Amino acid sequence: MTTREQHAHTTTWLLNQPADAVLTAKHKYDVADAVKICYEYHMPVIAFGIGSSLEGQLNAPYGGLCIDMSQMDEVVAINEEDLTATVQAGVTREVLNDYLRATGLFFPLDPGANATIGGMVATRASGTNAVRYGTMKEVVLSLEVVLPTGEIIKTGTRAKKSSAGYDLTRLIVGSEGTLGIVTEVTVKLFGQPEVIGSGTCHFPSIDMACQATIATIQMCLPIARIELLDPIQIRACNQYSGLSLPEKATLFVEFHGTKQSVAEQANLFEQIIEDFGGSDFEWGSDEAVRKKLWSARHHAYYAACALRPTARGLSTDACVPISRLAECVTQTQADIQKSGMLAPIVGHVGDGNFHVLLLVDTNNDEELKKAEEILERLAVRAIEMGGTCTGEHGIGQGKRKYMQKEHGTAIGVMQAIKQAIDPRGIMNPGKIWFDLGDNATSTNESKT
Amino acid sequence: MTTREQHAHTTTWLLNQPADAVLTAKHKYDVADAVKICYEYHMPVIAFGIGSSLEGQLNAPYGGLCIDMSQMDEVVAINEEDLTATVQAGVTREVLNDYLRATGLFFPLDPGANATIGGMVATRASGTNAVRYGTMKEVVLSLEVVLPTGEIIKTGTRAKKSSAGYDLTRLIVGSEGTLGIVTEVTVKLFGQPEVIGSGTCHFPSIDMACQATIATIQMCLPIARIELLDPIQIRACNQYSGLSLPEKATLFVEFHGTKQSVAEQANLFEQIIEDFGGSDFEWGSDEAVRKKLWSARHHAYYAACALRPTARGLSTDACVPISRLAECVTQTQADIQKSGMLAPIVGHVGDGNFHVLLLVDTNNDEELKKAEEILERLAVRAIEMGGTCTGEHGIGQGKRKYMQKEHGTAIGVMQAIKQAIDPRGIMNPGKIWFDLGDNATSTNESKT
Repeated sequence: MTTREQHAHTTTWLLNQPADAVLTAKHKYDVADAVKICYEYHMPVIAFGIGSSLEGQLNAPYGGLCIDMSQMDEVVAINEEDLTATVQAGVTREVLNDYLRATGLFFPLDPGANATIGGMVATRASGTNAVRYGTMKEVVLSLEVVLPTGEIIKTGTRAKKSSAGYDLTRLIVGSEGTLGIVTEVTVKLFGQPEVIGSGTCHFPSIDMACQATIATIQMCLPIARIELLDPIQIRACNQYSGLSLPEKATLFVEFHGTKQSVAEQANLFEQIIEDFGGSDFEWGSDEAVRKKLWSARHHAYYAACALRPTARGLSTDACVPISRLAECVTQTQADIQKSGMLAPIVGHVGDGNFHVLLLVDTNNDEELKKAEEILERLAVRAIEMGGTCTGEHGIGQGKRKYMQKEHGTAIGVMQAIKQAIDPRGIMNPGKIWFDLGDNATSTNESKT
Repeated sequence: MTTREQHAHTTTWLLNQPADAVLTAKHKYDVADAVKICYEYHMPVIAFGIGSSLEGQLNAPYGGLCIDMSQMDEVVAINEEDLTATVQAGVTREVLNDYLRATGLFFPLDPGANATIGGMVATRASGTNAVRYGTMKEVVLSLEVVLPTGEIIKTGTRAKKSSAGYDLTRLIVGSEGTLGIVTEVTVKLFGQPEVIGSGTCHFPSIDMACQATIATIQMCLPIARIELLDPIQIRACNQYSGLSLPEKATLFVEFHGTKQSVAEQANLFEQIIEDFGGSDFEWGSDEAVRKKLWSARHHAYYAACALRPTARGLSTDACVPISRLAECVTQTQADIQKSGMLAPIVGHVGDGNFHVLLLVDTNNDEELKKAEEILERLAVRAIEMGGTCTGEHGIGQGKRKYMQKEHGTAIGVMQAIKQAIDPRGIMNPGKIWFDLGDNATSTNESKT
């Protein structure tokens, strides 16, 4: 029972809905064989990476089989000349980067958690470096996928470009396991920067920090990271990670390049932020200082949770066109304050993407309701500003209700594709949309 | 008849197969209304932009209606703050860039021809700047699409990232009008570089020029353009565009950035090419010199055709992982020489992508056969080197025969999607694959 529940890991308030059984795959043929059987018996299949998804993607509301991919952890090939890596889906991004260390190359995407590459494909993950290096949709070159019938396909090649037929790679990226199970991934790599400069600066308000971010992006400064932390999050990080930053709206930034280019970027950035009341910009290329800073950013979730140890941290994300970012963040902040909730805001603001971390006593129904209302208003606000209810966490179970508002009639096309590729509806049913249109056996509904 | 034939424009040896009628659309509802009627009567629909596609994409082998999109040429919105432009599908890239001139922004993709943005979506176009700015799959944010039923959908938002459902935008990009007709496109824009440095350098062989390109990419130099021209193409450009370059394998390069950064890139590039026998590297940021150089590159097709005025220029492209580029280009060059054909090679070599321009007397069956065999061997060679039979021209009618070899069983998934979205097979039938699986009325087969 414990194993089954661990594999339905969820950091939302969604109930844990375990699968009926967990299979640990060691080879693509393990996956293919298991899926073939599930296909025959109309049984749901849910792929599990490391359990870091945030919207109930791993729950099994209709029971079925969970396939644990974490032991498919082989780095299949590093092609240094082509700047590509081919890995099994269970390889985590940290393992890949450890493997790459001696090559002078790195895999830049960093969603915070040490997710598996397969899981990052599933949710179209991105994170702190995406402002410069792109999201999973940009860095994945090709995939090996087990289809609902158990058939194995390859999408794409290692060539950097192709105009040969439909882009199945991008269709699978972000499909949250609803079209097939990814067993192998080829990603682009990048050269480790000669110099990395990191720094922080402070602003009189969230609005000003966002405005400075917008100006930085509009100047086409090739910034590698630009992360907003609101005053509450700064307080949390100071306490948790031993920093001593002023409790103000703060940007953590990073520049990649040659020594000369990093200095040029930092100088330009300093000039930009001055116009927005930015102050105390301190930066340097010392690795120890940098590690301390980004380690604090990575631990933002735990730091925030420590502000209220009895509560649970519910993380959500939204993304808007950057011109609407300041407005969206400040409206959200006002909404949180009005509700009397504790909810730090952090974000990959260079992409117009930010997170709200609601600290909720999940035993308190009134609080839960308030939290749910804040999340709902945020999703609607982002969509109405021409954005999306999720920039990088995915829909899972938690955000299905916004799909219609965000996509309108385009949902019909998505569902036609789902029906065409997975006519029995066995691949991760109950995710992305409510209307399953499947024949999945509902073995588990009574258990949850 | 002339209008119909003009709209089935093809630069291949494929026969001109005109549609039964041409409709000039002025509004998305013109498109939607026409498609609705075609849907009702199972009639093929082919969208026409400016007629610059290269693989017979605009032919109407089963007759039907050609919808000319060129008068849907409104720039709908420029969002300078968000670095986005929304345009009707018939806007050409040059018109868009003229429109943007005063904003300090530009749309970087440059496939050579002054294609419409809608057409560039259809073929997943890219071109000279893609090595730095990406292809249409990277720069398109969202689309408005008329489905085969006449229903209009929006794919995506103007937010830079989203994890909300399937990536319909990327599915439509590159689908060559077989899933729907694009009526509006939102693309990313970029800041016009403060300084543009352009230059040329020469190599003792094609192989060395490719090796130097590979090294440049591996050094992660953010080069904006790196174009190979073989000695025959240089001769053609010298004659046609009044250049006086040595008839050697040559790279045309361009650097974008601040004054300091451009100089740094150029110096680094000069160091790299020395290891590969590169010589006479001359570069500068004078606009007149740059324009002359890139105008010659843009006219490469016409320049090559002028080498043999009685012949027709048939342009093909292939793309391989960059580590195989030198091998693929030199094998192709040897193959051309062995056949006694005249066929300059040019290419966007930073992406592993290159073009062969076969100068063929299309009245000479033997020559045509030889040319076809060269193209076939090139496509197979690229696929066998882990690449693709087309990097940016698309499949159309000309490359359908390579789809199976390149994609294997994944074709079944593509066809299932086609069938799900276009069950009557009315959208640009006879393209991408041979097996239509459609009910398109074959009114035109006897005419061609």
